[in-house]
Parts: sequence; structure tokens; C-alpha cells
Amino acid sequence: MNLWLTRLKDPVPAGLKSPAELAGFELSHALPDTQVILREQPALNEGYRIEPLPGGFRITGGHTGLLYGAWRLIMDRLCGEASAAVIDSAPKYAMRMIDCWDNPDGTVERGYAGRSLFFRSGKLSWDPGRIRELGRLLASVGLNVLCVNNVNVHYPAQLLLEDDLPSLAALAEAFRPFGIRLMLSVDFSQPMRSGIPTADPLDPAVREWWKSAAARVWSVVPDLAGFLVKADSEGAPGPFAYGRTHADGANMLAEALRPFGGTVVWRCFVYNCRQDWRDYKTDRARAAYDHFMPSDGDFHDNVILQIKNGPQDFQVREPVHPLFGGLMKTNQMLEVQIAQEYTGQQKHVCYLMPMFKQILDFKTYMPGHEDATVADIISTRTLKNANGGIAAVANTGNDENWTGHDLAAANLFGFGRLAFDTTLDSESIAREWAELTFAGSTKTAIDAIVDILMRSWSAYEKYTSPLGIGWMVNPNHHYGPNVEGYEFDRWGTYHRANWRGIGVDRTTKGTGYTMQYREPNASMYEHVETCPEELLLFFHFIPYDYRLKTGKTLIQHIYDTHFEGAQDAADFLDTWKKLDGQISDKEAYARVLKRLEIQADSAIEWRDRINTYFYRHCGTEDEHGRKIYE
Amino acid sequence: MNLWLTRLKDPVPAGLKSPAELAGFELSHALPDTQVILREQPALNEGYRIEPLPGGFRITGGHTGLLYGAWRLIMDRLCGEASAAVIDSAPKYAMRMIDCWDNPDGTVERGYAGRSLFFRSGKLSWDPGRIRELGRLLASVGLNVLCVNNVNVHYPAQLLLEDDLPSLAALAEAFRPFGIRLMLSVDFSQPMRSGIPTADPLDPAVREWWKSAAARVWSVVPDLAGFLVKADSEGAPGPFAYGRTHADGANMLAEALRPFGGTVVWRCFVYNCRQDWRDYKTDRARAAYDHFMPSDGDFHDNVILQIKNGPQDFQVREPVHPLFGGLMKTNQMLEVQIAQEYTGQQKHVCYLMPMFKQILDFKTYMPGHEDATVADIISTRTLKNANGGIAAVANTGNDENWTGHDLAAANLFGFGRLAFDTTLDSESIAREWAELTFAGSTKTAIDAIVDILMRSWSAYEKYTSPLGIGWMVNPNHHYGPNVEGYEFDRWGTYHRANWRGIGVDRTTKGTGYTMQYREPNASMYEHVETCPEELLLFFHFIPYDYRLKTGKTLIQHIYDTHFEGAQDAADFLDTWKKLDGQISDKEAYARVLKRLEIQADSAIEWRDRINTYFYRHCGTEDEHGRKIYE
Repeated sequence: MNLWLTRLKDPVPAGLKSPAELAGFELSHALPDTQVILREQPALNEGYRIEPLPGGFRITGGHTGLLYGAWRLIMDRLCGEASAAVIDSAPKYAMRMIDCWDNPDGTVERGYAGRSLFFRSGKLSWDPGRIRELGRLLASVGLNVLCVNNVNVHYPAQLLLEDDLPSLAALAEAFRPFGIRLMLSVDFSQPMRSGIPTADPLDPAVREWWKSAAARVWSVVPDLAGFLVKADSEGAPGPFAYGRTHADGANMLAEALRPFGGTVVWRCFVYNCRQDWRDYKTDRARAAYDHFMPSDGDFHDNVILQIKNGPQDFQVREPVHPLFGGLMKTNQMLEVQIAQEYTGQQKHVCYLMPMFKQILDFKTYMPGHEDATVADIISTRTLKNANGGIAAVANTGNDENWTGHDLAAANLFGFGRLAFDTTLDSESIAREWAELTFAGSTKTAIDAIVDILMRSWSAYEKYTSPLGIGWMVNPNHHYGPNVEGYEFDRWGTYHRANWRGIGVDRTTKGTGYTMQYREPNASMYEHVETCPEELLLFFHFIPYDYRLKTGKTLIQHIYDTHFEGAQDAADFLDTWKKLDGQISDKEAYARVLKRLEIQADSAIEWRDRINTYFYRHCGTEDEHGRKIYE
Repeated sequence: MNLWLTRLKDPVPAGLKSPAELAGFELSHALPDTQVILREQPALNEGYRIEPLPGGFRITGGHTGLLYGAWRLIMDRLCGEASAAVIDSAPKYAMRMIDCWDNPDGTVERGYAGRSLFFRSGKLSWDPGRIRELGRLLASVGLNVLCVNNVNVHYPAQLLLEDDLPSLAALAEAFRPFGIRLMLSVDFSQPMRSGIPTADPLDPAVREWWKSAAARVWSVVPDLAGFLVKADSEGAPGPFAYGRTHADGANMLAEALRPFGGTVVWRCFVYNCRQDWRDYKTDRARAAYDHFMPSDGDFHDNVILQIKNGPQDFQVREPVHPLFGGLMKTNQMLEVQIAQEYTGQQKHVCYLMPMFKQILDFKTYMPGHEDATVADIISTRTLKNANGGIAAVANTGNDENWTGHDLAAANLFGFGRLAFDTTLDSESIAREWAELTFAGSTKTAIDAIVDILMRSWSAYEKYTSPLGIGWMVNPNHHYGPNVEGYEFDRWGTYHRANWRGIGVDRTTKGTGYTMQYREPNASMYEHVETCPEELLLFFHFIPYDYRLKTGKTLIQHIYDTHFEGAQDAADFLDTWKKLDGQISDKEAYARVLKRLEIQADSAIEWRDRINTYFYRHCGTEDEHGRKIYE
């Protein structure tokens, strides 16, 4: 089985050398009765044109564009769409990346779909057929960079820069026909494992070490995309240890990579992870902006800052990160997470495209680009000299169905589609995915799947933490409800609930976080009246008896949404049960059924834990007399 | 260094064969100028008589009694006590046991003093000199049984019954001169690892397997004390799986062990560990009584039920277990824990003898034995045909100082002393230990140490969970505050705090647990007015504005005790700092200083977390205006 390419029965054969060859294979295999002329035109790069011809089509495209055009044609045809018009398309972002958090020992950090596809027993090791199928999947939705190892670089990941280079070269070669370039996560302190007593980015020996490391790696993988770096973050080493800025650190690497055309992707996920809960001044949400804004303009042009979608960490709801629109002179990349760390861990269905669309469409009011959305800001075309992109933490593993939950594959598919073309809408993507994946199922089934996907994010949000406050999960593994799980911990993730209300005051009277946004966003978030209610508790401490725009009190809203969310999860299960016999793939049907049962149970646990927590604090009865445990 | 035997500079030599030989060695070494005549009189068994003679003493004792007498004389003399009168002594309990929770891989479950003294890399492996010193320490306080492996029997612990028997025999031999017999924890499902398809205690093949296993083990360790069993408990296998009672299970083993004089020690720690927090009916505290009372009288006479001191799990304060005084026709053994799992994990000082004394002195009002205390009930002499004892979960490991915190050694010493003679008082034991351990220190120092020890349990109780409610610790590792850490978990450990109050109703209106006690205890606990206040929240749900006997409200009591407890911890540290230069062992001084610093910090964290938790629920200000974080 191969997810949304399930109708393509033959695996990709070994030995294909280029995207053009692959495009030829895929077309002849998927559309045997359609004549397609392929014409490579290098200047088009990743772009393509599809022109209907009598009895067939002509695809004109760049080196990889040709393959993308082929997939576009194949998938449209498989979905039964006629393509009578000429289609011109090219990706908006140069870098459309999957970040795999795979460790050399074969585990996957925040992996919910089995073990690593790339590593086993401390080194690179893979199933070639499986890698070809992965390449095919990623290429079919236009993804073009794969970071192969965890941003938390665990020993012996440095082997990727040293002993394991032949394997790395072979893996890069395996992905090359799919138009996918590899990237590597590197440990900023890596020179110290080679006998250099420091990792100070201004130390000549350190600079020399990285230059020769880059030369070594690019000599065997000449099209390596670059290095990804998590520095000074959650215990990872970084330039701060030497009194240097992140620009010092990133630029040092950028110089090492420049001769080879490599890019440094530098994460902005930097904050004090040893906070004291008694400290109301320090605000983790402020940290990345406070750290990086002073360096705006200091980064070399082959550095990209990779910024998480929100200021915390991939919660079910967060405001857009204020560095977007804040930074004016720095390449930026959006990082999202399709690994469902905080959104049900691929046990719950949670289709994330509606969330990603909201993020991409957010207007930052960057001076001089007042209409620019996040999607524009991270584009290579909007910001002058910019080199932007979009990345997602991967949700795949060596499970037979790749993503654990079959419906989670919609997030991989959707992310790729959206990264290629942010104008697509979530529902169309969902439908396209469902039609491809569940080809041969009834129309009722396809409609139901699209409905479940489209309601899933909202359902998950309803039965988990309310109104943007986030967290309330079990520490460490992050699955399941634990309202005070992070409330007194060191990670800067507090909700401050008491007998009066809940929420964090991030206005100018509180931590001042609101002022990191450009106007009018800053004022919008600053005032309770104008703050979008789905983010109310993120920005404000709100009493339980506060009336929302619906006329409901906050506490009644909490109760209502939690009953609704659990009911949604129950509905998904009911709906699925009614589809028995209507889904073409019976094994997939059974697997999804099992996960929906787990979700429905878990949603009840969430509902009751959250409702009880608040009831125990305020003692307010539910207006509708539903059961809230004491 | 060898703890309270620090003044004995020479290690025990290898090659001594019997307690009598050892007694001779210890006396000549410890009291070289005192003439002591040793006279073995087998009938005295573990008892002894010390008679002053002109210029010396005569000790008459049984096989091990002679050694105990020697230690008594040595320790009295080291403490400078004159022994002018004749002393007759014999232990009250036949079995004075240390339960080591050591795993074959060398880890120690709930071990806070390094790794195992007995196991390494999957098998028995030890330092012979260290074992002799351990034997010496245990013998010096009269302990006579050592269960060598964890009650949670982890693979490959069954090697103790099979492949590893020569090592087991050698270890038993090493302990023999110290009058210490080994015991083994066994896995009830062990026959299934030998190809038998069941562990049903009534299955003939199973019975045969255990008989031959016993024969095999006793053939190499003829004085093995017996088997310790944790069955049907926290996931461990047991007779319930086969629809059998615990009496069926224990008696089956008892029959296998009878030919060899072996005893089955069967734990009563049986409860539903998959409880739902929404279930207010099920009460973990009730479980052991409900499970075992119906079988009273059904157990063979070489079975002893090992009952934890309280109905939960070694919390800082619990009521005495209702099986004591409940069971009338069953051998019973008290299990306490000197491993400080829930009492500061040997980072905090918490001298437990005052707690143990309260437990031992508790009157159960068993019919026909109305004046009998727990100490009497578990004695071989009070209950007819009984075969009782007392056991403690060990607090030792391979740390150089044996117990991690130097002051934690007082618990090992004290437990042994108390197990031998329950009439001793806590403070005398503390003083004796301090004088022996810190010999050569100033009188001020000894007094201060005794003062810290005597205040330590109370201090710990004050800054942790209030009035007997227990828990409020971090899940799994159990160190440090987490008020809701177990509140919604599956372990049956809830405090039910809300905006009105806190506590569990275990009266007849609640779970009915109070009725497991004999009268007048049942009525005493049943009524708020007569319930001892230190256990108030264990038995009752109490509103925050309830007035305690001090006239304080419950909430003010919580605030006050938490400020006091943290201050106590700060005082211990201050006191210790003032002892600089007054403690003979400078390394021990420094180690204790470091732990007291950790404790003082941790006590503040406890204080603030608990106070904030309650403040956030009820909103009541501290009457004294001290800082309570919002």
C-alpha cells in the first residue's frame, strides 16, 4: 500500500536516474492510455506547464518541474478531473522541507508511526524499496528537501559528517531521482568531539573545522541542501556559551557552506527552559523575538531562520509568531509540525491544513509590506534577496501504513500541496487526498472522510485546553490530559488558573508580549474586547463569569466546548461505523476504526478531566445539568 | 568508614565461620582491654545474658545470641555506658528482615544509595569485603534475614532458583557467620518459564515444579529463610488469574517449603491499580482487608502475611493497617520502608523511628487481646502458634557511605534496634546512633544531630501533604511536590480538593473504610470530632474554614505548617553550618551539608507549591500576610 498513490500498483523500479526518467515511468504506469510528451526546459526549474494536446498532453518543465507536472496530471486524472486548460505552476518556496527527528538508534523523537526509515543500530540503514516509495510520495506533492536526522543531535549522529559518509552519499543518491535533496542536523559543539577544546564560532580552529567538514560532506553529496541547527535551545550547545550571538554562530557555518551552495537553517526556538513558576515576569512566548530581533540584518544571505508557527511549541492553537513581520532583513522559514505531538499523536484524527492556512494567511503589517501575509513573507519572491521556505516535522515512520493513523497521511499530503501552492483550500486538499487514498470507496464514504477531516482540528481543540491557553498535557510524552502537568514545571508553560479565572496576562500590564506585534495587531491582542476569542486566554487572565461574544460565560463555554468536542469524537466513530463495507481498503477501515475508538475514549477523559478541574476551582454548576465529576 | 561501627578500624577478616567466632573477633578488637567470657547455650537461641564479672563480663547466649550479646556490650561500652547490672535480652520477633529491592541488572528499585550490593550485569556478583561489612552492620543491630532480590521479580531473577545457585550458596555462606539467613523473592508465574503452561496453584504439575525448585534451592542453601511473594499486585502474576484465592497460592508454596523449614512471606499489598478517578466508591485503602479477611485461618502455619504499616503505601502519615487486629488466625508481619521513597529519598533527613513507634504502639482492640498493640500482634509470643516478624525495605546501596544521606543510616540502625526490642524509645536510639557514628565530635554536635533527627519526620510532614492525605508527589519517581500528580491517575490515590475543602470521606457515608477497624477505633475515625487531626483528611472531607482544635482554620493550618516545615528545614541547615569543625568526620560533615542544602531548597518548593495550590482553590489570604504566590 502506498497511501494516496494506492492506485499505482507497481513499485518504483530501482535504477531510474533523474526526475525526467521517473516522470516517464510514472506517466506510462499511471496513465497508460494517455499520450504525454515531456519537454525539459531547465530555466523553468521546479515549475511546469501542462498543455492539452489532441489525444494527450505536453508537459514542459525544469529539471524537477517535469516530474511535478507529471504528478499534477496523474493526480488530477486519478481524481477524474478534466484538464482542458493550460496549467502553469511553480512552487512559491524554494525550500519545501520535511524535518525528520530520527535518531541513529532507530527511534524517532515525537514519532508515532514506528521506527526510523533511515537509521538502525547507530547508523544509516534503510530498505531501498521503501525509500523509493517515500521519495515517490514526497515528490508527488512537491516536497524537495528532507532533513534526515533529529534536530536534537544525539550521539553518534556526527557519524553523518564523518564515518558514515558513504552511506549518506548512497541515501542522497536514492532520493535524487525524486528531486529531493538531503539536509543534515548538526550539533553546534561538534568540533569538540574532534579534539578542539572549544566550539566558539569566532575561534579560527573551529571555523576551519567546519570548513573542512563541509568540504568533506559536499564532496560526497554535492547537492546537499545544508545544515539545520538547534542551538542554545533546551540544553543544546550554541554560541551563547562563548558570549557570541546567534548571528555569529550561524554566519560562521554559512561561510563554511557558501562554497558549496549550502544553506544554514537556524532555528529560533530559543528560550529559558529553566524557568521558575513563581516568576511572572519571564514569558517564554517573548523569548525568540527578544533573542533574534536585535540581530535582524546581521545574518548572511545563505542563512534562513526557521521560526515555529507560534511562540510556544506547536499547540493546538497559538497566535502567529511575532518574528514574522518583525524581522525585515532576514531570510525566514515557517516551521510547522505534522507529527501530531500536541494534537493527538496520530491516535486522534487532526487534519492540520485549516490551521496552517490561518497561519499562512495572517497579515503581519510589516512596514512597506502592509498586505503581506506570512505566506508572502517566507516566500522567495516577496522579500528581496530572500531565500525562504516552509518546513514540517515529519509524521512518518516504518509502520506499514507510514503514519500510524491512516487519516494522518492527509497531513503529509496536505502539507506538501500547501507548501507548493498556498492558495489551495483545505477542503479541496482533503477531498483530493481522500479520493486518491480511498479510491473505489463510495461517494458517501469520501464525503464522510472529508467531513471528519474538516471537523477534526476544531474537535480536538474543543475537548483539550480552552481558548489558546495550551498545554494541559502529560509531561514528557505529551499525550492525554493533565491540567497541571506543566503548571509548576520549568518550561515556562503556565495557565495560572485559580478560583477566579484563568489565563496569562501578556498585555502591557503583564508580560508585554502583545507589543512584539506590529500595529494594528498589537492593539487587537492588547484589548480583551478586540482579542480574537479563540486566543483569549493566551493573552488575558479572564474571570470565569466573563461573558464571551456568544453571551456565554467563560466557564459555561469551557463546559460546552468540552461536551461538544467529546461528542464530535463520538460522532466520528459513529460515522465510521456506518461506513462499514463502503471503504475499499478493509484493513485501513479496521485500523481507522480502532483509532477512532481510542480517540472517542480519550476525548471523554479530556472532557471530564478539564471540566472537573475547573468545577473544582470555581464550583459553578453546568447550566445544562450534565455530569461533571466532583 | 562503616557507619555506626566507625570506631572499629579493622575490617572483619575472611574465614570466620560462626557467630561465636565472630563475637570473639569483635570483642577482642573493639574492647581489647576487657576480658569477656563467651559461653554458648544453644537453648537461648537468639537471646543472651550479660553478667559483669570482676575485671570483665560473661556473655551466655544461643548460637546467634552470643553475637548479639557481644554487640550489645561493645556498643554500650563505646557509648560510655556502664553495665553494672545483669542484662537478659532476646528478640521479640523471630524474623527481623531487610527486604532488598535489588534487580539482577544491578539497579535498586526505590534505591537512593547507588547500585546493588549483590547483583551486577544480570547475575549475583559482590565484593566479599563489602558483604562482610554489611553483615557486621546488620548483625550489630540484630537483623537476621535478608531478602536479596526485588519483590517485583524482573527477568532474569529466576536464575536465583536455577543457574545461579552456586553463587546463591556462596552468598548465603558469606552472611552465615553474622547470623543472617537469606530469603528470595519469587515470581508466582515462574513455572511458566520452564515450559509448564500454567501457574495455577492447584495444578499438579505446578505444585511439583515448586517442590522440586524448593528441593533444589534448599539443597545448596539449607538454612534459606523462605520465599517472599508479591502476587496479584501492580501487575504481578498471582492466583487470581486462575480463580484461586491467595490462601490457595500461598499454601501451595508453603507445602513445597515445609520439608525444609522454609517460610512463605506473602504480601498483602493487593489492590485495583487500574482505578478510574471518577469512581468514588472503590477505595484502595479498603483493598487488602477486603481481599484477605475472608481467608483468615486458611493459611498454613509456615505462611506469614506481610502487611504494610498503613493501607496505602509508606506515606509520611497513614493510619495503621486494619488487618492488624482484624486477622485473628493468621501469622502476620509488619512491613515498613526505610528506603525513603515517600519521605525525601535520602536527600531529606527523615528519621522514621518516631513513626514506627506510633505504629508498633497502636492498640487494635483485637477481641480477646484488647490491650494488644501491633507490636504484640506480630510477635511470636502473643498469638498462639504465630510465626511473626517485622521487615523493612532496605535503604542501602553501593554508595561509599551505604545510605546516600549519612543521617539516613540512623534508620537502618534504628530499625534493627527496634525490631529487636520495641520498648526502646526513638530518642535513645538516635542518641546511641549519633554517639557511635560521630564518635569524637563535640557534645554540642551530638545533641544537635539528635535534635535534627527527632524533629525531622515532623518537619517533612509539615511541608508536604497535610493531615494524612498523602501523595502530592511527582508520579513514578515520587520525589518532590506535585499536588495533582496522582489525582487523576489509575492508582487509587486521590485527595479530591476543590474550592470548598479537601479530603476523602472514608466514613460509613463514604467508602466505609472506617468500619474495617475494631471498636472503639472505628468510631474514633468515623467522627470528625474524635478523629486524630493528623489523619483528618485521610478520613474526612473537610472545608477550608473548619476550625481545628488549635482554633485555626484548616486553610490557615495548611499555610502555617508549610511555612513552619520549610523553616525547620532551613533551621537544620543553619544548625549544621554552625557545627563546622565540631564533627569528627569532615567528609561526612560536607556530605550532610550538601543534602541539607538540597532539603532546604526542596522544602521551599514544597511550601510554595502546596500553599499556592490551596490559595488558587479557595482564595483565602494568609492571616500573617506571608508570601503566597498567586
